[in-house]
Amino acid sequence: MEFTIQQIAAMLGGQVQGNEQAKINMLAKIQDAKPGQIAFLSNPKYEQYIYTTHASAVIVKQDFVPKKELQTSLILVEDPYSSFTILLEEYHKMISFQKVGIEEPSFLGQGSTCGSNIYRGAFSYIGNNVKVGDNVKIHPNTIIGDNCIVGNNTILHAGVKIYSDSKIGSNCVIHAGSVVGSDGFGFAPQADGTYKTIPQLGNVIIEDNVVIGANTVIDCATLFGDSTIIRKGVKLDNLIQVAHNVEIGKNTVIAAQSGVSGSTKIGENCIIAGQVGIAGHLVIANKTGIGAQAGISKSVEEEGEKIMGSPAYDVKDYFKSYAVFKKLPDLNLRIRELEEKIHSYKSNGHSL
Amino acid sequence: MEFTIQQIAAMLGGQVQGNEQAKINMLAKIQDAKPGQIAFLSNPKYEQYIYTTHASAVIVKQDFVPKKELQTSLILVEDPYSSFTILLEEYHKMISFQKVGIEEPSFLGQGSTCGSNIYRGAFSYIGNNVKVGDNVKIHPNTIIGDNCIVGNNTILHAGVKIYSDSKIGSNCVIHAGSVVGSDGFGFAPQADGTYKTIPQLGNVIIEDNVVIGANTVIDCATLFGDSTIIRKGVKLDNLIQVAHNVEIGKNTVIAAQSGVSGSTKIGENCIIAGQVGIAGHLVIANKTGIGAQAGISKSVEEEGEKIMGSPAYDVKDYFKSYAVFKKLPDLNLRIRELEEKIHSYKSNGHSL
Amino acid sequence: MEFTIQQIAAMLGGQVQGNEQAKINMLAKIQDAKPGQIAFLSNPKYEQYIYTTHASAVIVKQDFVPKKELQTSLILVEDPYSSFTILLEEYHKMISFQKVGIEEPSFLGQGSTCGSNIYRGAFSYIGNNVKVGDNVKIHPNTIIGDNCIVGNNTILHAGVKIYSDSKIGSNCVIHAGSVVGSDGFGFAPQADGTYKTIPQLGNVIIEDNVVIGANTVIDCATLFGDSTIIRKGVKLDNLIQVAHNVEIGKNTVIAAQSGVSGSTKIGENCIIAGQVGIAGHLVIANKTGIGAQAGISKSVEEEGEKIMGSPAYDVKDYFKSYAVFKKLPDLNLRIRELEEKIHSYKSNGHSL
Repeated sequence: MEFTIQQIAAMLGGQVQGNEQAKINMLAKIQDAKPGQIAFLSNPKYEQYIYTTHASAVIVKQDFVPKKELQTSLILVEDPYSSFTILLEEYHKMISFQKVGIEEPSFLGQGSTCGSNIYRGAFSYIGNNVKVGDNVKIHPNTIIGDNCIVGNNTILHAGVKIYSDSKIGSNCVIHAGSVVGSDGFGFAPQADGTYKTIPQLGNVIIEDNVVIGANTVIDCATLFGDSTIIRKGVKLDNLIQVAHNVEIGKNTVIAAQSGVSGSTKIGENCIIAGQVGIAGHLVIANKTGIGAQAGISKSVEEEGEKIMGSPAYDVKDYFKSYAVFKKLPDLNLRIRELEEKIHSYKSNGHSL
Repeated sequence: MEFTIQQIAAMLGGQVQGNEQAKINMLAKIQDAKPGQIAFLSNPKYEQYIYTTHASAVIVKQDFVPKKELQTSLILVEDPYSSFTILLEEYHKMISFQKVGIEEPSFLGQGSTCGSNIYRGAFSYIGNNVKVGDNVKIHPNTIIGDNCIVGNNTILHAGVKIYSDSKIGSNCVIHAGSVVGSDGFGFAPQADGTYKTIPQLGNVIIEDNVVIGANTVIDCATLFGDSTIIRKGVKLDNLIQVAHNVEIGKNTVIAAQSGVSGSTKIGENCIIAGQVGIAGHLVIANKTGIGAQAGISKSVEEEGEKIMGSPAYDVKDYFKSYAVFKKLPDLNLRIRELEEKIHSYKSNGHSL
Repeated sequence: MEFTIQQIAAMLGGQVQGNEQAKINMLAKIQDAKPGQIAFLSNPKYEQYIYTTHASAVIVKQDFVPKKELQTSLILVEDPYSSFTILLEEYHKMISFQKVGIEEPSFLGQGSTCGSNIYRGAFSYIGNNVKVGDNVKIHPNTIIGDNCIVGNNTILHAGVKIYSDSKIGSNCVIHAGSVVGSDGFGFAPQADGTYKTIPQLGNVIIEDNVVIGANTVIDCATLFGDSTIIRKGVKLDNLIQVAHNVEIGKNTVIAAQSGVSGSTKIGENCIIAGQVGIAGHLVIANKTGIGAQAGISKSVEEEGEKIMGSPAYDVKDYFKSYAVFKKLPDLNLRIRELEEKIHSYKSNGHSL
């Protein structure tokens, strides 16, 4: 990418002071920036850097008045941090979608169709009867099974594996090594101690705007016509386990290494920290907050609860109990002491 | 797949009422079924649906007497649910084993042999001197290292990585992204604070009828001639860690995100819940049950124990303690109150 | 590999008793060894085996005097165990680096360069402008994104995925399925309950002599010019999560399934057990020891602390509290008993 300072100012609705025609090809922090880069100044604490920066341009607040001479050009805007964020996002989008075309060898099954402007990396595999939308980026070694659908603008990073019959929405990102649609963990115990595999015949549906981290696993539903469902706007971190028939509600966020057991339904806009375990067949209310490493063994019925512990309950109560837990050896002594006092009192002839 | 109702009835040892020649190509739930599909009715609560279902056939108990007119054909059997399960399994088997042949490009090393009826997906890799049995399905991007053996009817899903010298039994399923045979985590501390890698030279043996979930890791044994062993019929869920020299006994089931440290020997028919951690060099007795998120720090000697907590002990005792843990702030107050009473008693001149 | 006993003795600085010209092609345990293999005897408990072993040679202490006739040759050294370890390491190195050359098809992007003596497995992918050093082994299906650097003698096992702009040092090993450089988990909540993705534009730096297990994930840093950093000599086990902007200090060892949240800085020579969770924005002092399943919610300031629990604190204190936790139901009863005694005392007319 390469833009003039003028072009960037136009994008941000800002005004230029300095060389409008200088070229910008990268974003940077004000203290690290090199010529050709653009930075921002929002926090007055960092003002000193604007007088020494090597950036070709700095985005500043519109009422900024330099106290010394400047070597850099300025773009004056209402909110420098927001403006810089807009640039970051544009840059990120550009980077994320810059790959176009088909690297060979790659595999395209029968009856499969791909939209315009897509990238299919080398050693990527698209099975039969797959529908891939526009602007989709399929990185090297990614596998899409038969009959899958992948919506527009979705990015599948390297080595993602999507089992047959999965449906992935638009504007999703799935990071490297994640698995969508593996068999649910269902086995029926037999009289001789062995287990019979319960066939897993459902699929996975991932709605729009979902982000899935690296090496996360989402199992398919058990029955025909049933789906494990990840609703619109859900964000899942790395190494998460989502079991069969789970549903995760809109805009819920789950941090790394958490696991959700079979058939549990998680509400919308929940915030679930890392290494949390949620048992099967539960219903978790909207806006539930779950602390790190909690173990959820029963449904959460009230919206907005914050829970912690294993099994988990109210986070404040948990911490109050944990504070006493740390003093348990002392409590133990004090109880013994009380007992001794009472005992010695009795042995002194008092009729307690 | 496509069968007549008559053929399916014959398979199930049932009798047809209605159109024997109608074609069935799919299984479904009675309330969702479409023409061409077969459903079952087992629970009387669902009887209403049989009068409105679009299924071409419904499997019912042999003494079923309809109360209204039916649009669907019936197959009368002794146990409708079991019969439906048989169909599910047959269908699942058909789906799982339907891929046959070699997609190109795929890689076959020197001295390696494959049995009949196998599938080698595109970008799958078989190293040198590998023996692959009959009906094996090697999905795209799966890697089998040198000198491995893979038994008959085993399915390796997409992107499975098997290190050299591993032995995989018959009728196994390994899901996408799992790793078999990576180096055990062994390092010798040196005087200067660095660590020297202890070479990991053993292998992994997976016996027959083992199922391994997605993105699970099984490390190889440390010494020559030693093996990390997964016994017959073991079922491992997703994202599980099995360290070097571990042995997991016959028919043991482990849920997602649990981890077993080096050299631990787990007995037969154990049931281990999710996110459990088991320390190294332990022996876990047969039929041990371990609750979710438990941390096992010592061997379990008695068969059939149920344990929980971190460090784990008897599950009932754990829950009794946890119930009191939740009341600890209250207990703390009550102890203080007792102390104050005793103290005030003493200050009132009594000789306690 | 094949060496004479004489060659091996020379390598170890030992002396041969027996047939110097016999060929050795493998290492084994003394009780399992076959002809052509070499074993060692260090622990006197195992002396019996030296009289029956089929090994062609046994490494023994220089003062070893056989009590019976021997069928095997001897190599006399100062410390048989250390000598055997040297052979193990040499053998392991030979095995690890034996693959050389380019298997086809494999992918090499524009402007990328590879050193001498490297291995590029089939279906491995090297993007544009990548610099790969000498003796690097890139196993099948491994992906290296654009602009990466990989140092000399580094081994990338099958299916490793390295995102663009990552820097990997020399003498590193990354095991199968691990991911380096995936996006950090950063989302800004919006007024309507949705989340906006915060672009992740930094990279990952892995210094020399780092070992990373299988299916581990290391996210890139958020800002331009920032890096998630794994310092020299760090050893990470399988299925570990390392979030954006984390720094892990020199020679720190982390066991399987642990997770480190964003921007946390872990010191040098720490030992962190399995399934540990560390919150974000903390500083963990050098030589900290963290027990299995601990949850670290605040910084550790003093060097050499050993902590445990969730939230974690001093390990000895934790175990003391946990010992009392197990007796809580009993404590609960004793408190009630005390209360009843005091109460009955009062109701007996005493003025407590």
